[in-house]
Amino acid sequence: MAKRATIPFDTLVIEPNSGTPLTRQLYNLLRHHITGGRVPIGTRLPSTRALSQQLGIGRNTVLAAYDQLLAEGYVKSETGSGTWVAFSPAIPSSRPASILAQPKLSRRGEILAREPQMPRSPKTVNFQPGFPETITFPYSTWSRLLSQNARHRGGDMVGYYDYAGHQRLRRAIASYIGVARGVDCDPEQVIVVTGAQAALDLVSRVVLDEGDQVWIEDPGYLGAHSALLGGGARLSALRVDRNGWNLDDPALPPPRAIYVTPACQWPLGLTMGVNERMRLLALAEMHNAWVIEDDYDGEYRFRGQPVPALYGLDRSSRVIYIGTFGKILFSSLRLGFLVVPRGLSDSFGRAISVTGQFAPLLLQSTLADFMQEGHFAAHLRRMRRLYARRQAMLIDLCERHLDSWISITANDAGMQLLANLLPPWDDRQITSAARLHGVDVQPVSMNYRYQTPEHGLLLGFAALDEKNMHAAIAGLQATFRDLEAGAPKSGSSK
Amino acid sequence: MAKRATIPFDTLVIEPNSGTPLTRQLYNLLRHHITGGRVPIGTRLPSTRALSQQLGIGRNTVLAAYDQLLAEGYVKSETGSGTWVAFSPAIPSSRPASILAQPKLSRRGEILAREPQMPRSPKTVNFQPGFPETITFPYSTWSRLLSQNARHRGGDMVGYYDYAGHQRLRRAIASYIGVARGVDCDPEQVIVVTGAQAALDLVSRVVLDEGDQVWIEDPGYLGAHSALLGGGARLSALRVDRNGWNLDDPALPPPRAIYVTPACQWPLGLTMGVNERMRLLALAEMHNAWVIEDDYDGEYRFRGQPVPALYGLDRSSRVIYIGTFGKILFSSLRLGFLVVPRGLSDSFGRAISVTGQFAPLLLQSTLADFMQEGHFAAHLRRMRRLYARRQAMLIDLCERHLDSWISITANDAGMQLLANLLPPWDDRQITSAARLHGVDVQPVSMNYRYQTPEHGLLLGFAALDEKNMHAAIAGLQATFRDLEAGAPKSGSSK
Repeated sequence: MAKRATIPFDTLVIEPNSGTPLTRQLYNLLRHHITGGRVPIGTRLPSTRALSQQLGIGRNTVLAAYDQLLAEGYVKSETGSGTWVAFSPAIPSSRPASILAQPKLSRRGEILAREPQMPRSPKTVNFQPGFPETITFPYSTWSRLLSQNARHRGGDMVGYYDYAGHQRLRRAIASYIGVARGVDCDPEQVIVVTGAQAALDLVSRVVLDEGDQVWIEDPGYLGAHSALLGGGARLSALRVDRNGWNLDDPALPPPRAIYVTPACQWPLGLTMGVNERMRLLALAEMHNAWVIEDDYDGEYRFRGQPVPALYGLDRSSRVIYIGTFGKILFSSLRLGFLVVPRGLSDSFGRAISVTGQFAPLLLQSTLADFMQEGHFAAHLRRMRRLYARRQAMLIDLCERHLDSWISITANDAGMQLLANLLPPWDDRQITSAARLHGVDVQPVSMNYRYQTPEHGLLLGFAALDEKNMHAAIAGLQATFRDLEAGAPKSGSSK
Repeated sequence: MAKRATIPFDTLVIEPNSGTPLTRQLYNLLRHHITGGRVPIGTRLPSTRALSQQLGIGRNTVLAAYDQLLAEGYVKSETGSGTWVAFSPAIPSSRPASILAQPKLSRRGEILAREPQMPRSPKTVNFQPGFPETITFPYSTWSRLLSQNARHRGGDMVGYYDYAGHQRLRRAIASYIGVARGVDCDPEQVIVVTGAQAALDLVSRVVLDEGDQVWIEDPGYLGAHSALLGGGARLSALRVDRNGWNLDDPALPPPRAIYVTPACQWPLGLTMGVNERMRLLALAEMHNAWVIEDDYDGEYRFRGQPVPALYGLDRSSRVIYIGTFGKILFSSLRLGFLVVPRGLSDSFGRAISVTGQFAPLLLQSTLADFMQEGHFAAHLRRMRRLYARRQAMLIDLCERHLDSWISITANDAGMQLLANLLPPWDDRQITSAARLHGVDVQPVSMNYRYQTPEHGLLLGFAALDEKNMHAAIAGLQATFRDLEAGAPKSGSSK
């Protein structure tokens, strides 16, 4: 039965001026004694009146502290029977906490966690590929539309909504890619997600099972590589070189899916010609495989019109098209989309309700306005012209200052250029050295997983104004001179 | 060798006033003939001069059209040899497009796509649980901070960044949950994602492999159920009823992870007492299992202080804590977070770089400001008081108008109350009928996957002002009367 323990309760001391609320002090003290085992289970606590008199505090204060202990299960109470201790600490484990087993990540978790993060150096000129020009982005327009949308309190802004995306944005995207990319689709086929990486991850999980075979370009985009591996795929190299895609490689097993970047191959910058496109689709048809078309730089063609997407040649609803706004607007926007076959919108929407890759409605509706008011198209046109100029400037500077070490060719497409190395150096040593000279640049070899890597540098020119581009070139020049002065580092035998 | 075909080229007709640019018209025509097989592979195209004279258009126009065909691979050219057709259409498949095999979703894709989407009716009063009050949300403050952050063009706003989240926000969150939830952690342990669902999905993939055993509360939260299944887990029911969690159920296999909602069990609303918490941690320790603590409603305690999170009792770094802002601010914000053991931040950040579950920097930095300026805490305090009043109003209205059909008890925690059915009706029939009476309400039974379901209604009161709550109660009353008048639908035998 309940014992009347008096010793710990007599010794309770409350500090009225300590700054900690009295209720909390009392709660802390009582809990401390209970969890310390100094008030055995079954011990009845003093009545609230008695304890309040003893401590010289209000009865409500005591009541509140008891209520908290009750809510957490340290004590129990029954009308008429008072309140008694209901918790007994376990005998402490004889093993110290540090020896207790620590759960580990799963095997899949280890795969997901292996994704190489590119070390970013804040004090370097960013020559990395994939960064759009942002200084001249129309922030005031964007900001104005953002505010307008933030003030709108309608149901479609603040509640839950169609997981596949904001309806107006899906319409704007369908309209845009119909004209700009030859992707003829209904708004319902457009699925909005939190960026291209999320699109790659989602499609990997929805169309693949563990162990499924996937052809991936080699060299190829590492983000796709990681997403496919994260989805459990077994990858085979679809070898790409200057002559194109090696589609009839006898080493390739029958695929469940094929990943390609046909508008501007990452990283080599080729455009897949129509013959290869037809051959790819024929193979996909033969194997009943999905084709994942990653159109990341599809907008940026500097001569003539952008080449229409592969999607448009598909007769059998097997191409899943991936687009992103990150390279057109700004990357921290995190908005991308997929175009999926009619009839699968619902499934993809539901899948997103599980993966949680929802883009915030506010940004979706703001972008919808931005597109519908014509700012998006205007920005794209400005950027195309700007990037064409910057590419020309890059080529000129490379020819004038770096021609002993690299050869660079113009490309009709893309926000970056591939610089081939003339001396047989390892491009990763160049990029490490370049960082010391204040330039952050990507080695081409890191994009190879299966073939013997070619070595070179992928130079992202889009975000560099004249001053920064000169600084970047100067940094590379200093880097090359240093490397020449030291022992040459051969990359060709790797 | 190249034949000189004249027939198709002689018949080319350009419409200068058609509205379509001349280059595009010519490109379309030529491509049409080439893909139609009417210009055999190897045929030399007329010289640009000849064709421009023939058609009466500028030579640059012809050149641009040829360039586009070249870029796409329909033609090839060599200086001095002219331009010739390089594409030959494949013999059309004898199978019509509709009979071609259509790739299907993977088995996992089917699982992900099975997530039940709750049908939303725009014309109903929303009595669904989980929706916070949003009418009185301080939009002008939020909007102002949003604009400020949108105008900021620093590197941390528009470039790529730490995948684990915005540094200031991680600090603000660590600080807040330290005080409010007893979750004592470094900012580095906080991983920001696109909402609680993304957090559940991420943790499922990072700590589990296909086939791993997981205990999940039954009844339990369906979003977690889907995320765990989507990650390939094998689920076992951790049975919960009014008396608590059946942790020592002999039917439970050794788990790799245990999913619980200890602050406010979904959907029953219980708070896990300290004895059960200690028992749960002891079991997790014994099995070296992860514990996934979903603290979705942890803030909303109406009497006394919120019960500290289970995380705080963990001595062996096995609790992964999940929090969300969706139920405090507004759900379309899509911001949630995990707290992971020290040493695993890097792995989780890298995993997000694969899953793409990044929350946009703009919203992260805006929220950081909102928290640091004190608006978040103020809003939370207001909401707690408001929800306490609304809960009281709901109980009063239910007692006065619905007591023939439901019994409802106050709860110290949560944004919803569980209404038990007095007549032995099937709650899904009630919710269908209620929709016809303009009320959108959730059946409790849908949260059961393993045990015999209890039937009841989960009434979300947080977002209902007086007028809407009266309307909702009136709708339910009409629903119940209708059901009484028709044949009673028994739910008890299911």
